[in-house]
Amino acid sequence: MKIILDGQGGDYPDQAVMGAIKAVNKHKDLEIIICGKAEEVNKVLSENYSGNKITVCDCREVITNDDVPTIAVRQKKDSSMVKAIRMAKEDPTIDGVVSSGNTGALLTASLFIAKRIKGISRPCLAPSLPTAIDGKCFVLVDCGANADCRPINLQHFAVMGSCYVESLFGRKNPTVAILSNGQEKGKGNELVKETYPLLESTKSINFVGNVEARDILFGDYDVVVCDGFSGNIALKTIEGTALCVMRMIKNSIKNGSILQKIGGLLIKPAVRKLKSTMDVNEQAGGTVLGVDSIIVKAHGSSKEASICRCIEQAMLLAQNDIVSKIKTNLSGLEDYDN
Amino acid sequence: MKIILDGQGGDYPDQAVMGAIKAVNKHKDLEIIICGKAEEVNKVLSENYSGNKITVCDCREVITNDDVPTIAVRQKKDSSMVKAIRMAKEDPTIDGVVSSGNTGALLTASLFIAKRIKGISRPCLAPSLPTAIDGKCFVLVDCGANADCRPINLQHFAVMGSCYVESLFGRKNPTVAILSNGQEKGKGNELVKETYPLLESTKSINFVGNVEARDILFGDYDVVVCDGFSGNIALKTIEGTALCVMRMIKNSIKNGSILQKIGGLLIKPAVRKLKSTMDVNEQAGGTVLGVDSIIVKAHGSSKEASICRCIEQAMLLAQNDIVSKIKTNLSGLEDYDN
Repeated sequence: MKIILDGQGGDYPDQAVMGAIKAVNKHKDLEIIICGKAEEVNKVLSENYSGNKITVCDCREVITNDDVPTIAVRQKKDSSMVKAIRMAKEDPTIDGVVSSGNTGALLTASLFIAKRIKGISRPCLAPSLPTAIDGKCFVLVDCGANADCRPINLQHFAVMGSCYVESLFGRKNPTVAILSNGQEKGKGNELVKETYPLLESTKSINFVGNVEARDILFGDYDVVVCDGFSGNIALKTIEGTALCVMRMIKNSIKNGSILQKIGGLLIKPAVRKLKSTMDVNEQAGGTVLGVDSIIVKAHGSSKEASICRCIEQAMLLAQNDIVSKIKTNLSGLEDYDN
Repeated sequence: MKIILDGQGGDYPDQAVMGAIKAVNKHKDLEIIICGKAEEVNKVLSENYSGNKITVCDCREVITNDDVPTIAVRQKKDSSMVKAIRMAKEDPTIDGVVSSGNTGALLTASLFIAKRIKGISRPCLAPSLPTAIDGKCFVLVDCGANADCRPINLQHFAVMGSCYVESLFGRKNPTVAILSNGQEKGKGNELVKETYPLLESTKSINFVGNVEARDILFGDYDVVVCDGFSGNIALKTIEGTALCVMRMIKNSIKNGSILQKIGGLLIKPAVRKLKSTMDVNEQAGGTVLGVDSIIVKAHGSSKEASICRCIEQAMLLAQNDIVSKIKTNLSGLEDYDN
């Protein structure tokens, strides 16, 4: 198995290299190509790795978070991100790409270089999110790639999300719901109301109807489908609320009695565990779905463990051949390209 | 001051009467008319109240949560909700209405009976939500009345939300932001991008640009504007996430060491305080903005204290004459009705 790592886009390029080392040490049959500034990558490698499973592809440019995605992808041809995706597209022995770089640029590069799967109207970004059930995640598609959508886009997100949950978590016949402002059929904005019958008629998914945003975190749904604007609001509201509640508890304990303060100290391990559940660095990466390569987006602030996990995620998706699975499940749908 | 209370729509009609009693006992110049089944209301009154500030208006019908709003409002003319809003419209001595009934029906009745303020394209429902800053709330408009919106609707929500925050919290020149998928200008779906310049040019508000959903709960914004579908997603995601985080902490403590369990017991008062901050019953009611009456929506499960608070909210909005304030701040905007 061969994975290519964009070693430069995230906040901690050194940690990206360390993540690659961790991954090859863990998986005997894994090879990694790191795209990045050779002198920097080699410095970390020489100090921490003596094997021969990691090679370096020298890239002189970096796409940063300040770059405008479309311009950066067009102009920075020698950037670690563009080169990583181009190599994955051109070399059939490469199984997947991992990058913690600029999300917009990664989506743009995925679309223009890896190219959309024939029949898919729009690729999307699929993160997996924790639920109240320990260890059970769900997938939110789209969570930000496409701010304005049509029903056919949401149908494709549903099909892809379903394949993704099967490939990533091994769950058979995952439930798919559409995010709406009420659970009853008939609730929703125009987009939801038009998409509902389309999802009902999609044979390759297990559509279970509308879901309200307050119910998505309790483990009853495997795939939640929405336009990228609503998905971004749900995703960011989860992050903000979790942070806010933790802060409120902390303040309430801090301003409480001495007994409450002692209680606060005693529950610290429990809070730490919860923090790690909610922490993006502890979670799986997001995956760009609908393009003809496996492209995993690690969080920008990913460190060693998180990069390693994202590499393993790309391996798993390659082993389960998610791209072929999506292609198969598209058959029977109205062909978007014709 | 005279407030009319729909005594029948919520889960606890007895508690609605108790809330009215609490309010008149607290405010010497307050009179309340309770619309509801006279025998039921009088029974609670005879056992708990001996004054003459509460009168009863007998209504033989009730609009329930199972009713279809438009049909119920048209057909159940003798319902407590319809009669309460009609009386408030027809009797100029009545200052406001409080109801804990079916939200959709209340919005419908507000629109068709109380009528829209001239120049307002769409009324909306404005809840005030807690933030990480103790005691500081913000207002989310619209949070569910209008699933599909146009830029002019959002402009009106912004103007009304701004008047509302001034009237309810006494905050001068409140900040108004538009909910988007990125903070930078230019981010957003088509609706947000089209609304942005309109809000920039609205002189009666203090527009500060886009806000991401993860930032709305930290007390930096007074009014957050969005379409009712996105607002519903943000609102319900906040509820769901807060519940989920509390459950996770509880489980983590329950499955933790004996010391953690003791810690859990010790922090109970802090958690209880937090729960009451997040609890709708402890919060102010939502207000229907943009109609020619003051109509406060109490939560369906409101009890005595919450009903009393909603009555006080209606009194405060009447004292600050929010309807006139909205009418004044509309002047200078493109006239929607002409």
